[in-house]
Amino acid sequence: MSNDEAFHDLLALLQSNSQQSLDDLVEWLRIPSVSSDSGKIAEVRRAGDWVYEKFSAAGLQTRIIETEGHPFVFAETPAVDGQPIVLVYGHYDVQPAEPLEDWISGPFDPTVRDGNLYARGATDDKGQALTHIQSVCQWLAAGNPLPLQIKFLIEGEEEVGSGNLERLLPELADELACDCVVISDSGQYANGQPAITYGLRGIATYELHVQGPSQDLHSGSFGGAVMNPAIALCKMIDSIVNGDGVIQIPGYYDAVQPLSDSERQQWRQLPQTDEAFAAGVGVNELFGEKGYSTDERRWARPTFDVNGLTSGHQGEGVKTIIPAEASAKLSFRLVPDQDPVKLTEQLEQHLRNHTPPGVTWNLKSDHGAPGMLAATDTPFVDAANVAIEAAFGTKPVMIREGGSIPIVTRFQEVLGCDCLLLGWGLSDDNAHSPNEKFCVADFHRGIEASARLWHEIAKRAQ
Amino acid sequence: MSNDEAFHDLLALLQSNSQQSLDDLVEWLRIPSVSSDSGKIAEVRRAGDWVYEKFSAAGLQTRIIETEGHPFVFAETPAVDGQPIVLVYGHYDVQPAEPLEDWISGPFDPTVRDGNLYARGATDDKGQALTHIQSVCQWLAAGNPLPLQIKFLIEGEEEVGSGNLERLLPELADELACDCVVISDSGQYANGQPAITYGLRGIATYELHVQGPSQDLHSGSFGGAVMNPAIALCKMIDSIVNGDGVIQIPGYYDAVQPLSDSERQQWRQLPQTDEAFAAGVGVNELFGEKGYSTDERRWARPTFDVNGLTSGHQGEGVKTIIPAEASAKLSFRLVPDQDPVKLTEQLEQHLRNHTPPGVTWNLKSDHGAPGMLAATDTPFVDAANVAIEAAFGTKPVMIREGGSIPIVTRFQEVLGCDCLLLGWGLSDDNAHSPNEKFCVADFHRGIEASARLWHEIAKRAQ
Repeated sequence: MSNDEAFHDLLALLQSNSQQSLDDLVEWLRIPSVSSDSGKIAEVRRAGDWVYEKFSAAGLQTRIIETEGHPFVFAETPAVDGQPIVLVYGHYDVQPAEPLEDWISGPFDPTVRDGNLYARGATDDKGQALTHIQSVCQWLAAGNPLPLQIKFLIEGEEEVGSGNLERLLPELADELACDCVVISDSGQYANGQPAITYGLRGIATYELHVQGPSQDLHSGSFGGAVMNPAIALCKMIDSIVNGDGVIQIPGYYDAVQPLSDSERQQWRQLPQTDEAFAAGVGVNELFGEKGYSTDERRWARPTFDVNGLTSGHQGEGVKTIIPAEASAKLSFRLVPDQDPVKLTEQLEQHLRNHTPPGVTWNLKSDHGAPGMLAATDTPFVDAANVAIEAAFGTKPVMIREGGSIPIVTRFQEVLGCDCLLLGWGLSDDNAHSPNEKFCVADFHRGIEASARLWHEIAKRAQ
Repeated sequence: MSNDEAFHDLLALLQSNSQQSLDDLVEWLRIPSVSSDSGKIAEVRRAGDWVYEKFSAAGLQTRIIETEGHPFVFAETPAVDGQPIVLVYGHYDVQPAEPLEDWISGPFDPTVRDGNLYARGATDDKGQALTHIQSVCQWLAAGNPLPLQIKFLIEGEEEVGSGNLERLLPELADELACDCVVISDSGQYANGQPAITYGLRGIATYELHVQGPSQDLHSGSFGGAVMNPAIALCKMIDSIVNGDGVIQIPGYYDAVQPLSDSERQQWRQLPQTDEAFAAGVGVNELFGEKGYSTDERRWARPTFDVNGLTSGHQGEGVKTIIPAEASAKLSFRLVPDQDPVKLTEQLEQHLRNHTPPGVTWNLKSDHGAPGMLAATDTPFVDAANVAIEAAFGTKPVMIREGGSIPIVTRFQEVLGCDCLLLGWGLSDDNAHSPNEKFCVADFHRGIEASARLWHEIAKRAQ
């Protein structure tokens, strides 16, 4: 039997096994593997063990890599001479499910409604990771060797920052050595429009704490005598970005590369209007830096956001105080070549220059990671294009993503590999929110696209 | 026996009764009359009954005036031909005691430490109100008629806004008719420096709610595409007041009268330095409108404060969202002639002119009251000066107060009376905070000053 015939049989097998594939996902999703919850350490490990068993049963070389936190599951198929090595990265941990009362069905009681499977982790990332696990395990179950070597690293700390993986990556570099890392932990461009993501923004997050008087003061007896730290905080935040959405920190744009005309041209042809985008998020008008399209602004321009504000009286009714303190959570999205460490210095200097009299402040840097740009003229991208078009019935578009996956940049740096970000999710999948879901049809398309990807990559290397 | 001899005997009696006066206060303070607590309705009434019994036992004409909420206690001594009528206003309700864990001794277990009596209500207002109640009751107990008619209105809803009193005041106007209302519910200028307060600021409070997207958005995927409502809120707040503390709302200062040179001259001689003031509140530098002293700014200039900020993620750690909404509690302190209703219109117009694109907002007006200025060239002020100097051993200073007592303005309007604000408290008495206290010596000085006040007023009318 030729490779093509065998592959044709595999596709038929994947289809006939589709209910079993979904049942597997439901079983995995039942495990509440919330990595940030210290009361759920055993459950997180159970979710790791589940995928360990899955790989072992399919005949992959599998091992648990212990860390100071939740373990990694590593698995691999045999090396294939003359063929590249692909590393699939995913994670078996999930975000907390709270607020529980907002879930229509329980977060760990996976339920299908209207063609979607609802559960915490359905799309982020158990559902997406499982598409690759299924394609490989079922390939082996059909009695055929994989045409190239595939390694898996499925970790349990992605939702708490992947600290152990970042730390251990250099010493695991030999074991994880690969030509391309494949990650499905993002989204399609739109419903029915799959995408290949070749760029990510970086991130830098901070907590800014402004201190005024040593305790809350009566705003009658003291109003007019001292600086109000909540007003001071507002003025400091206002100083960071002007009314046109342009960040005012000196040097902030120094390392930012202009977008290429061809990239801008390509994105302007993507099938989404500002009107539809605005309606989707419930605002009457979009906003951002002038001279850039919406996708340009959110994918490829650096931005500033306030993630939270806290000061003084937050309950019902009136309490006429000058609060003793005020604080804000700040985040910046960076584009490739912007350095989060440098930003911290620039931000501190800017805030020093914009501190109102009578308050002091403290800036805590939480975490930072640079942005990422992957090459698009690789055989891997070419193979993914063909695989996705065949499985989804639509040619994928080439996009960037505004979010950050810090570990991707580290894979590039430490393993020196190419990178394929193939998201099967949708923007309304409620990742990190109540009623997280994954479209069941996209789950099956993802499995097919994954199998086709291995086939297409191997074909190109022959 | 002459009036002067009788008065001399009374002063001696007040002194010999001082332990009993303090015991009375302790008994009253044991009743947890928290007017905002619907579980304490019976306790609040018990505190009203306590003062009713006190008046009745002393032979005053006393009645309970029922309201839709907590009752008023009204009492009066007989009219005296050719003499003015004085109305003493006070309140028997108290603020909630929470947070309980911060109290050194229980809030309703009055305890003397270092010459101070600690309990909720010690200074605000049971302790201060009782100085007048004691002076009148003991005057009568000594067997002498009062030299002028004194009426008392002791209410039970001051800490929840005096809504029923504001409403019922017009129909009670005949019964409450007086030449001067006397209120001891404020403070001395400083420890050892008594004061007569002749001005109060008005107040207008608001809640500003800014709405962005219909739900929290991922700041990676959406940052740069939509206006962040927390940033929008900061920009709107920033637009209200400039970096020199000058309010930017058009028309805000239109009705503000300049301070007289003599008033400014008087205040600049008050015994307090900016350095000591800053150290007292724990800031390294004071702040406010240029060209005005600290007391001018907090007593007689209109101000703007943010009392609270709420938006997005407020817990530990990082949550990289664009919050769906952001809100702030705002308060303005007004000077006499500024109209809180007009301010609401001006503020709305200002915010309309400073709304960033892509957000909507809603402004809820909570409550407003104009400021107050009392005449200072009255026989009542003259009498208070003499009475206080004799009792406290120091001539009182004439001050204004930055806070607001809305009912005072209503007394002036409805009863057409003069007004004496005689505060026996200190700025560190922790009114509304844990460990509220009242200096025991000031309690006794207050009783003596009160008795002397009746004597001095009557002397001037002879």
